Amino acid sequence: MNRGLLIVLSGPSGVGKGTVCASLRHRMPELVYSVSATTRSPRQGEINGINYFFKSQEQFQDMIANDALLEWAEYVGNYYGTPRDFVDRTLASGKDIILEIEVQGALKVKQKFPEGVFVFLMPPSLDELKSRITGRGTENADVIDHRMTVAVEEMNLLQHYDYAVVNDEIDAACQRIQSIITAEHCRADRLMTELPQMPAASEKA
Amino acid sequence: MNRGLLIVLSGPSGVGKGTVCASLRHRMPELVYSVSATTRSPRQGEINGINYFFKSQEQFQDMIANDALLEWAEYVGNYYGTPRDFVDRTLASGKDIILEIEVQGALKVKQKFPEGVFVFLMPPSLDELKSRITGRGTENADVIDHRMTVAVEEMNLLQHYDYAVVNDEIDAACQRIQSIITAEHCRADRLMTELPQMPAASEKA
Repeated sequence: MNRGLLIVLSGPSGVGKGTVCASLRHRMPELVYSVSATTRSPRQGEINGINYFFKSQEQFQDMIANDALLEWAEYVGNYYGTPRDFVDRTLASGKDIILEIEVQGALKVKQKFPEGVFVFLMPPSLDELKSRITGRGTENADVIDHRMTVAVEEMNLLQHYDYAVVNDEIDAACQRIQSIITAEHCRADRLMTELPQMPAASEKA
Repeated sequence: MNRGLLIVLSGPSGVGKGTVCASLRHRMPELVYSVSATTRSPRQGEINGINYFFKSQEQFQDMIANDALLEWAEYVGNYYGTPRDFVDRTLASGKDIILEIEVQGALKVKQKFPEGVFVFLMPPSLDELKSRITGRGTENADVIDHRMTVAVEEMNLLQHYDYAVVNDEIDAACQRIQSIITAEHCRADRLMTELPQMPAASEKA
């Protein structure tokens, strides 16, 4: 059986990662979604193993110590991370798995998992990104300026990615990502390690 | 304007390159087909610049001498080759161009044009390839054995290609090739040389 692919979907804050990822999962129900581990408490209706793997502080520290996370970060007093085991088991079963993550986390995943397919979601333009960030709600001009500065810095991380997909329109962006997944399954270097079915030249006669 | 892509479609004899290429051109009318140069005489209905660029022996020798061909070969007394100029002009106009060619020719093209997208069309199995070669007509067992030996040698050239596409079913194979073309247009390394629109980090503030 062929191993699945780890697809890492990232991009600057405000570009629409969550929306594209949700639409992609709807279009590709066979795609597995990477479930994060967290130390925060479950909210109403959240199910362990579906929304998150809920862990105690001690369990999470053990995972860090045992290198059981592809990346982790602390956010407002809680830990969040990507369990390596869930990704490995999914790939070994031949299924593709998608991880939606901010740009710094994606770069950490790349260090531990360079064979992943790293997709950078781009805004059609910086003006459009500003309009999306502004349109989100009630932030004042300073907050928006700060977020734009961060977004421009994040855009410069594109160089570490395999693919850039412009999120001009959700369906078009999803179609491009689906094409990338199909193409990556056809890559000769992946197939040659997975399909050793051809006789060697010396056996041909 | 973004440069187009040169897609080189190759694979062992009998795998169905011509059929897949014809179907692909039907599905993607915007895809330009690389026209070969030849010294053979035009047949009834063949048009210069559409079916072939018809050249005299002297003109063809000049093209060889001037490195105006991406590859060339002699076949039953006539020369055939891929004019570099037609490929270059098509790519510069922003259009993709496809070149259908046997495996040895594809490797020569790769030497002169490594930025091309090299797609290797594979039979679902060697048994299926033998059945396709046998089914073509009236060849005797020796001829079929020889062609199978050559085909197995050709299969081992897969390692020099970017992608392998199994030709199990024409529509599925075309769909994979279309996905490869879409994905290649999204490759970050291609986009970064073509779209220098992002401000540098030093300009952000």
